[in-house]
Amino acid sequence: MPHRPKTMVAIRKLHDSPGLDLVEDTPFPRIGPRDVLVQVTHAGICGTDRHIYEWDAWSKSRVRVGITTGHEFVGRVAAIGPAVRRAEVGQRVCAEGHIGCGMCEPCRTGNAHICEKVDILGIDCDGCFAQFISVPEENIWPVHQAVPDEVAAIFDPLGNAVHTVMAAGVSGRSVLITGVGIIGLMAVTVARAAGAGCILATDINPKRLELARRLGADETYAADDPDWPTKARRATHDQGPQVLLEMSGHPTAIRQGFEALRNGGTAALLGLPSAPVSIDLPNHIIFKGATVLGINGRRMYETWYQVENFVLSGRLDLEPIITHRLDLRDFERGFKLMQSGEAIKVVLTVPQEDAAPCPTPTSTTAVATSSRR
Amino acid sequence: MPHRPKTMVAIRKLHDSPGLDLVEDTPFPRIGPRDVLVQVTHAGICGTDRHIYEWDAWSKSRVRVGITTGHEFVGRVAAIGPAVRRAEVGQRVCAEGHIGCGMCEPCRTGNAHICEKVDILGIDCDGCFAQFISVPEENIWPVHQAVPDEVAAIFDPLGNAVHTVMAAGVSGRSVLITGVGIIGLMAVTVARAAGAGCILATDINPKRLELARRLGADETYAADDPDWPTKARRATHDQGPQVLLEMSGHPTAIRQGFEALRNGGTAALLGLPSAPVSIDLPNHIIFKGATVLGINGRRMYETWYQVENFVLSGRLDLEPIITHRLDLRDFERGFKLMQSGEAIKVVLTVPQEDAAPCPTPTSTTAVATSSRR
Amino acid sequence: MPHRPKTMVAIRKLHDSPGLDLVEDTPFPRIGPRDVLVQVTHAGICGTDRHIYEWDAWSKSRVRVGITTGHEFVGRVAAIGPAVRRAEVGQRVCAEGHIGCGMCEPCRTGNAHICEKVDILGIDCDGCFAQFISVPEENIWPVHQAVPDEVAAIFDPLGNAVHTVMAAGVSGRSVLITGVGIIGLMAVTVARAAGAGCILATDINPKRLELARRLGADETYAADDPDWPTKARRATHDQGPQVLLEMSGHPTAIRQGFEALRNGGTAALLGLPSAPVSIDLPNHIIFKGATVLGINGRRMYETWYQVENFVLSGRLDLEPIITHRLDLRDFERGFKLMQSGEAIKVVLTVPQEDAAPCPTPTSTTAVATSSRR
Amino acid sequence: MPHRPKTMVAIRKLHDSPGLDLVEDTPFPRIGPRDVLVQVTHAGICGTDRHIYEWDAWSKSRVRVGITTGHEFVGRVAAIGPAVRRAEVGQRVCAEGHIGCGMCEPCRTGNAHICEKVDILGIDCDGCFAQFISVPEENIWPVHQAVPDEVAAIFDPLGNAVHTVMAAGVSGRSVLITGVGIIGLMAVTVARAAGAGCILATDINPKRLELARRLGADETYAADDPDWPTKARRATHDQGPQVLLEMSGHPTAIRQGFEALRNGGTAALLGLPSAPVSIDLPNHIIFKGATVLGINGRRMYETWYQVENFVLSGRLDLEPIITHRLDLRDFERGFKLMQSGEAIKVVLTVPQEDAAPCPTPTSTTAVATSSRR
Repeated sequence: MPHRPKTMVAIRKLHDSPGLDLVEDTPFPRIGPRDVLVQVTHAGICGTDRHIYEWDAWSKSRVRVGITTGHEFVGRVAAIGPAVRRAEVGQRVCAEGHIGCGMCEPCRTGNAHICEKVDILGIDCDGCFAQFISVPEENIWPVHQAVPDEVAAIFDPLGNAVHTVMAAGVSGRSVLITGVGIIGLMAVTVARAAGAGCILATDINPKRLELARRLGADETYAADDPDWPTKARRATHDQGPQVLLEMSGHPTAIRQGFEALRNGGTAALLGLPSAPVSIDLPNHIIFKGATVLGINGRRMYETWYQVENFVLSGRLDLEPIITHRLDLRDFERGFKLMQSGEAIKVVLTVPQEDAAPCPTPTSTTAVATSSRR
Repeated sequence: MPHRPKTMVAIRKLHDSPGLDLVEDTPFPRIGPRDVLVQVTHAGICGTDRHIYEWDAWSKSRVRVGITTGHEFVGRVAAIGPAVRRAEVGQRVCAEGHIGCGMCEPCRTGNAHICEKVDILGIDCDGCFAQFISVPEENIWPVHQAVPDEVAAIFDPLGNAVHTVMAAGVSGRSVLITGVGIIGLMAVTVARAAGAGCILATDINPKRLELARRLGADETYAADDPDWPTKARRATHDQGPQVLLEMSGHPTAIRQGFEALRNGGTAALLGLPSAPVSIDLPNHIIFKGATVLGINGRRMYETWYQVENFVLSGRLDLEPIITHRLDLRDFERGFKLMQSGEAIKVVLTVPQEDAAPCPTPTSTTAVATSSRR
Repeated sequence: MPHRPKTMVAIRKLHDSPGLDLVEDTPFPRIGPRDVLVQVTHAGICGTDRHIYEWDAWSKSRVRVGITTGHEFVGRVAAIGPAVRRAEVGQRVCAEGHIGCGMCEPCRTGNAHICEKVDILGIDCDGCFAQFISVPEENIWPVHQAVPDEVAAIFDPLGNAVHTVMAAGVSGRSVLITGVGIIGLMAVTVARAAGAGCILATDINPKRLELARRLGADETYAADDPDWPTKARRATHDQGPQVLLEMSGHPTAIRQGFEALRNGGTAALLGLPSAPVSIDLPNHIIFKGATVLGINGRRMYETWYQVENFVLSGRLDLEPIITHRLDLRDFERGFKLMQSGEAIKVVLTVPQEDAAPCPTPTSTTAVATSSRR
Repeated sequence: MPHRPKTMVAIRKLHDSPGLDLVEDTPFPRIGPRDVLVQVTHAGICGTDRHIYEWDAWSKSRVRVGITTGHEFVGRVAAIGPAVRRAEVGQRVCAEGHIGCGMCEPCRTGNAHICEKVDILGIDCDGCFAQFISVPEENIWPVHQAVPDEVAAIFDPLGNAVHTVMAAGVSGRSVLITGVGIIGLMAVTVARAAGAGCILATDINPKRLELARRLGADETYAADDPDWPTKARRATHDQGPQVLLEMSGHPTAIRQGFEALRNGGTAALLGLPSAPVSIDLPNHIIFKGATVLGINGRRMYETWYQVENFVLSGRLDLEPIITHRLDLRDFERGFKLMQSGEAIKVVLTVPQEDAAPCPTPTSTTAVATSSRR
């Protein structure tokens, strides 16, 4: 196979310091017998990628130096391992980024997102900011023909929003979303489609609040307006919202969110505070009779079916959330746009020209050297 | 009605300082058109009563000076208001101690325990450490003839245990109970009857741990043994308990409990910490995909039916929990026994001799002066 | 009180044969100490009323001859019994038509709709097709000022639709409604507001199917089209709807509905077949892993809060469902319009002129002669 | 590989008529890349196997002539396909008998038991009444060392009982089991361990009722005693059982079970009627506000974890249910014992002597000819 490409373009984390590197001659990924090789066409930049780019405390402690970053993508199946059943070459696919061990109780009961040994694409193993990626077939999601590439590329973060909204249960209930970053904004349109009653949102960024209203929020509040909890209560028949979707990770928002929550309400926590948070358990949880749900990732694969159903229903408005399209090689600009607050979701277009149309999988013996179990 | 008693014996909180007073000539309670007058025969001393006795910070800020204390009791209906339908004179009854406003959404949907305007017997209005108590008929629970007086007297705290256990859902699941005080011990026998798998318990008091084992705990750990979380994990197939019933209110127990909890597990919080607690939300709730339930009081009246069913099934072992029986006038000794750790549940026997066998209710016009809505 | 009206206009079931009678000198209703006297302003005609009008087999076996009919209404509180707390004279109210015994487990746990001793307004005791009606205060629902009279008048049937939709859980799921009579049509708009995905509907009446589409149904099918189950399956990604709301009571619709239902789906049954129905349990319920819910009435009062929230959210479209407004005395025409299929919901306007603005309640002694416990 | 055994002993369905054949020279099963070859040591005879043995109408229409029968077993892994990750040679395993397609929504959300394309071991493909069986690794369940072989051999039917009991939710609730055949008897001990309150059971066989009492039933009734519904109601505080576990498939039992069920109760249907059943939907489901659950198979793999937890807890009493142990070649006697009603669960011991200790898997090319997808 003399014409097979030996290398590809990829964005990698090569040094224990801020920044990412564009590496033109990244070695081609190897696939095992149950893996699928995907030629990536579009990839979304996640807030997590920005943490890795900025190399903050969390990234330093968690991310493996040397990996290719990125975990939100869509592409075409370029090759499959010999034992693969769920994918075929040429198929358009995206993928769940959490790779469960496959053996434990969570993995075998639809909860691989809370597998204790979970690996995450672009964090623990090579990700999708590259022309090709190797993914276990278990994680592959076939993309319905009616779904545009850009939307398929962000099924993963959209799945975070859907998981949160559906776990909390918003149908016919008033909802407060604290923090309308990318996933918070997605949660607004998902909550609207899922039948929420009144939707309220807080954020420090007025542009995002404006966008939240456009996506279906009934009222929005500046997070630093000391009166917002009072206003939120007034907007909900003086009882407070029945559901809190916490998407900021900010201690004040968490505290105020619990304070605003109606007695008997449900709080779904997705935002990640960077330090332990002091919580008034008696007044904010116990006497309230509140239900608090920890949310991460997506249920496998219940959430994915929900995501697909919402997208195909035509009831989600994702267009205003995807604010920028850039070439993969222009990734630096993507991160700068996110840092400035100008961009919400940036989708990278991956160059197709250099890659072979249908690369041959590596042999089975190659599997042993794969970094993934 | 010349023979009607004008006064009765009651234990009251008369001064803004520690201690309670035995008042032999307490005015007789008045009843409104929908109230029931109960001649108390037995009353349980609750941890809350001890707080009021010791007059701690919480009591000072919450309890109305001048009230008769106590909220756990059983007795006979002595009189009923003219609009009462659910009770009849002579009937043996106990009562729910949370008096909802009756108008709000929680009150009208079986959740009066989280009514924002809830009044509590013995805290906001006159309680049951007395020969007679006036209770809204809504709160009366007719006692089944097969239930002994002493057990009926503690349906209220037993209801806390049942509410916690049933809300968490223990059937076929491994359970960790942090803190086996009165309600924690009740939770052991309730969880066993409700079909829990492995039951683990922690406490600082070895006598209580021994009692927990007698009531059905499979393993118990000294709360200050730094290895208990490891042992608890080992006892649950190296995965941690599926359910945490937090009944200590102690910050360390809360933290360790969350740490031990299995991914995807449920934590029901009943214990009341005296200050805000610092919680590692990402690792203890969010990444775990945990469900956290705030529990107080009892569901009205779903929990009461569950309590009755458990008691009548004969599958609860409450005998070892009721350690002392004392005369009402001997209440000081009861509090001392609780403070020393010697007593678990103390039941006070209320003298019947001085009271009229069947006092006449006050007139309807008296209602307007009642302290209760 | 010499000016007090002794009689009023009412529509009554006086004979054991088809038809209803307008009785101009109906005795004024008496109220007990916990009852509320409501001066009715608007009343809806229910399908049940039509059954009574037509005096079918069910009516004969169930309805008490001699009663005033009707159970859907709105009005103003004209008087209250001396022990009433939840209502005040002049307040605008509607009411739950199921009167539970107040003593049993369903009644005390928010499920009075399944009380074994339930009485129903207009069936077991005097109803609302009259200038005044007496209702237990427990059943009174204060109407929010933003709700129009005509909508408040039909909270009861709207509650049936909301109960069915919310019990089944439609958020993000595909829904099939078999039978779009009054409640089926309400279910379409409620399901849309509650976040249903694809909504499909069947009926034999093309006009109703057209209205169903206007209210939010994505596809509708003639009930006698043998291919509709195939079409319904095609409309749901070849898997069948996830939720069945059975509102026809027709054996064929029930059978076909179960056939169409997706494996693992939920069927909520509201429609009442007039005879036992033959069901293929293995193929339609057991192997499917289906969940079947029996639905009647409304949860007290959880459903009522949901109804109010939906109405106040502005997301329901009830206008096209209320097709006719008639004077109470013109009730015959209302029934004819329903029989012809021309009308959907008919709302009767009750004449106010003859009635005293604020009648005095009867004395408490009158209670003993009331027909209601 | 000249010493490799080419054939084995198996019990097969070779003719379209009653009976099964012992075939000593059955071809050795082939395994694909993701399959596991298990050397069977013990196999349980299921009621389904008896249907196939008797070749009733259902069997004729459903079972593939030519297959090896049986689906309940335990054994040792003898070989694994090259892509297998979850099993290793020598490991003791049993297996889920429902083989999902692996691609559909039920299969990908823990509900493969309701996959529309499910294959069943011993019905659609070769089963376990043989020295060796080939099973997809997905279906393999590693057996904990504390579980005896005979118990591991019946995890599959025990899983039916656990699935039914846990889906219905018996904790603290009264339970009626109609039909205590093998799975009904298992359901008695499981319901007891899962925290059921009062357990009632019906059957036509007095010996089974006696065994039900020994396993934990509080009262049992002859199914033909016309008064049993009255007695069942009396045993449940005059309200009827809260849970019905229907395990007979008999139309009368189904009707009486629904009749006995308390308003608001839950009915879980596992028994398979041989014809459509006439159901009084209004009185037995709709007005009751009942929840009806169709149950088949086991949730994959939530139910399996529950089964393991119950078995390891030591709270199940399975010993009296396994009444007979026979050699595989003595299977005829096993079926006769079941037909006579003498046996409950018969476990067949599979001869090990003739089989190679560790046969080599067939090559990957063999997969194409496998009967299983």
